[in-house]
Amino acid sequence: MKLSTLCYIEREGCYLMLHRVKKKQDVNAGKWIGVGGKLEEGESPDECVCREVLEETGLRLVNARMRGVITFVSDGWDDEIMFLYTGEGAGTVHPDCDEGVLRWIPFDDVPALRLWEGDRVFLNLLRESKEFFSLKLSYHGDALIHCALNGNTMTTLAPEEPK
Amino acid sequence: MKLSTLCYIEREGCYLMLHRVKKKQDVNAGKWIGVGGKLEEGESPDECVCREVLEETGLRLVNARMRGVITFVSDGWDDEIMFLYTGEGAGTVHPDCDEGVLRWIPFDDVPALRLWEGDRVFLNLLRESKEFFSLKLSYHGDALIHCALNGNTMTTLAPEEPK
Repeated sequence: MKLSTLCYIEREGCYLMLHRVKKKQDVNAGKWIGVGGKLEEGESPDECVCREVLEETGLRLVNARMRGVITFVSDGWDDEIMFLYTGEGAGTVHPDCDEGVLRWIPFDDVPALRLWEGDRVFLNLLRESKEFFSLKLSYHGDALIHCALNGNTMTTLAPEEPK
Repeated sequence: MKLSTLCYIEREGCYLMLHRVKKKQDVNAGKWIGVGGKLEEGESPDECVCREVLEETGLRLVNARMRGVITFVSDGWDDEIMFLYTGEGAGTVHPDCDEGVLRWIPFDDVPALRLWEGDRVFLNLLRESKEFFSLKLSYHGDALIHCALNGNTMTTLAPEEPK
């Protein structure tokens, strides 16, 4: 089971989004995601997310809060549990990120980006309520085929992708 | 990294506690803990905790809520991330549990039981507030040597053990 963190850093009505256009053979190629990465040995999710945010953006993560736990299962890659955070970033975003291009995107413009289907579900949950959630996302290839929130199947998977 | 769930089932002012007195070479031998176990492949924490509660107690877990994520590191055993739940149990507790002896213990009597030091910390957090937390517990042998709550070092590790 892979373990990772993902953080949406908030500033002035925007999220810091990472456009994954730099790495070869990247499962996220072309998609916009938050900032994060894999847990290292002996690290808690809280420590991992601070380290990853600093490495990838140059920002010091403050007021970080674990907002959800996401379980990914798929036919294409290993199971993964991801700890989802929001927070603020102290400092200035550094221009070079190995993983892709960093941009501040207004909250309302995020749904128009190229996102994973499941990311739309949890981005929506983050905006709807401050309550912690546990989400299971099941993928068949790139298609989200099942979604359970706090152990219960969700009937509406995600808001419609803008045309 | 080992992944597990632990649940404190609530009923009429009591927690269902498991006295670990049955298994040989049990890291928890003699201690009182909640009910839970290891995540299986493809399982979310929500699914794991329901399965473990049913297997170990015969109860159907209802109103389950993930209350915290605990990272354990120690010099004696593998790192572990544990998803901590509370909930209610529908049905009657079955008399036989492979792991130990099940007893309903009034909340106020739980601190007098033989517990892990770190368990006192999170049992206290469960009682103090409904807010979700992330906790890192570092052990040297059986001794809790460091404790971080939501990424910040806790100065008071745990309430005193009753004499």
